[in-house]
Amino acid sequence: MGVSDGEVAVALDVGGTGMKCALVSADGVVRHAERHPTDAGRGPDAVVETILAVAEGLAGKARADGLTPNALGIVVPGVVDEARGVAVWSANVGFRDVPLRDLAFTRLGLPTALGHDVRAGGLAEARLGAGRDGGHVLFVAIGTGIAAAHVVAGSAATGAHGAAGELGHILVRPDGPACGCGRPGCLEAIASASAVARRYAELVGAASDGGSAQAPAPGRTMVTAADVAARAAAGEQVATRVWREAVEALADGLATGQALFDVETIVLGGGLAQAGAGLFDPLRAALRDRLTFHREPRLVPAVLGDEAGCLGAALLALDQMETP
Amino acid sequence: MGVSDGEVAVALDVGGTGMKCALVSADGVVRHAERHPTDAGRGPDAVVETILAVAEGLAGKARADGLTPNALGIVVPGVVDEARGVAVWSANVGFRDVPLRDLAFTRLGLPTALGHDVRAGGLAEARLGAGRDGGHVLFVAIGTGIAAAHVVAGSAATGAHGAAGELGHILVRPDGPACGCGRPGCLEAIASASAVARRYAELVGAASDGGSAQAPAPGRTMVTAADVAARAAAGEQVATRVWREAVEALADGLATGQALFDVETIVLGGGLAQAGAGLFDPLRAALRDRLTFHREPRLVPAVLGDEAGCLGAALLALDQMETP
Repeated sequence: MGVSDGEVAVALDVGGTGMKCALVSADGVVRHAERHPTDAGRGPDAVVETILAVAEGLAGKARADGLTPNALGIVVPGVVDEARGVAVWSANVGFRDVPLRDLAFTRLGLPTALGHDVRAGGLAEARLGAGRDGGHVLFVAIGTGIAAAHVVAGSAATGAHGAAGELGHILVRPDGPACGCGRPGCLEAIASASAVARRYAELVGAASDGGSAQAPAPGRTMVTAADVAARAAAGEQVATRVWREAVEALADGLATGQALFDVETIVLGGGLAQAGAGLFDPLRAALRDRLTFHREPRLVPAVLGDEAGCLGAALLALDQMETP
Repeated sequence: MGVSDGEVAVALDVGGTGMKCALVSADGVVRHAERHPTDAGRGPDAVVETILAVAEGLAGKARADGLTPNALGIVVPGVVDEARGVAVWSANVGFRDVPLRDLAFTRLGLPTALGHDVRAGGLAEARLGAGRDGGHVLFVAIGTGIAAAHVVAGSAATGAHGAAGELGHILVRPDGPACGCGRPGCLEAIASASAVARRYAELVGAASDGGSAQAPAPGRTMVTAADVAARAAAGEQVATRVWREAVEALADGLATGQALFDVETIVLGGGLAQAGAGLFDPLRAALRDRLTFHREPRLVPAVLGDEAGCLGAALLALDQMETP
């Protein structure tokens, strides 16, 4: 079955805090967008009910606007088994083995695809965004954590158990700080936005006997990674060090990704990627240093912003309409 | 076009030292096998001529035996652009941008596939060998170097430029020894068979003032990685240390692979994998330690031995016959 004018996918990107939702036509154009709180603290059953109600509402909105909702795409974080349509494990949302695809199909009667938020975001960046010109794309989202999606020929690798792309949990510093996953030295523990902010606070705290003019008092508000980037750009010593450590760890992680995947384009998304030239210039140089026999990939910022996951959910929904 | 009884692929696995060659039927059965020296010192033109002559000879042998050679598969080491059929860069064989597929097609008139030796070996192990029961397989060849092939649904990932799978050149020890590629701390510089042998020789040399009863004189014959494994199994102190360092680096590398690829089965091939339980027992334990939220892959030895690459070359040849 193909798709025609007036047909739209209902797309939901469910995060720990909020849901980004849209009606998207086959050419990737967003016809309508809305956002809802996830309110994950209510527990998984309530979150599922909200997802289904929001999806129903969107389908109704489409019909009211003279559009035909013909498919539903939902993406969630964590471990997602796309093939079985099961949210295996999502700490942020509180899901554990939730058969979300079947639940949604039962409720809405629309063919439904369940996907992974970062893989869906990578899919959207690779097909509609910054990776559009490259057949082999590695999308890396750097925010509270770090995760990646490897997209080849318009399809994101899922892995055997829906857990592929965990670039945040590759070892880059054997003697590095503990990661939330329980292991030391993961990329995420050094180069995620939260790790950058945490490391800066630690060092400024440690240097408060006189090392830094900006040393705040204990109990201070923690600076963000964006603050650290700005202070590094302004030449502040501790910020420069923390930023350089993060950039070098990130370059190590991307070099490992390039050694294994050999892509044409690496697209960086998430909050940290908004640091612009302050990130991309030193990161390109550090990555170039690490590539010996490999072709250097293009390293570009994501362009779809926080809508990438929702657009990817729409692509997953539309793709299944194209499959016989 | 399908394949029928009596039809065989002509398959060549070209290495720096020798060529493993065979006639292989569609069910993966080797009907005839032969080996030839590569004699790479003669230069790339002479090696190409030998490859073509050997392939012609094999096709003639097939016909003489009442078989029909219907396709040719050639695999070489280094960087191989499968899509264009070009051996981009093979240090061992001396190739640089050799359009081997077209040269072979012109000479033999058979549909020809050019592939990469380790990716072809992985393909064979995944489809005919140790990975047969798992849809997502990571094949890791550990010999003089370390390289990998990620096989999903019976097809090995090539990357955008034919350079995917370079597991030997991922960073595992930032303060580790220099790798042949020019960077420090690559997996290959610590856990390849040659790295194990070299490290042992270094330590025994350094300890020769009294540290080790077995310290040989300078100018001694270097022990092999297999010797180190055997001495470690016998409780020899330096060997135990070197072996443990290699196993831990290897576990870090495999954990990175699992984080990114999420496979069902990791197949270890190459010389080092022949260490058996002395490798697999501690490696399984070390890998398990490193996996937190991920599913543990099966970790198994390759079963096709040094014929894997040649069988993979045959699969590549046969696959193109199945493609319309």
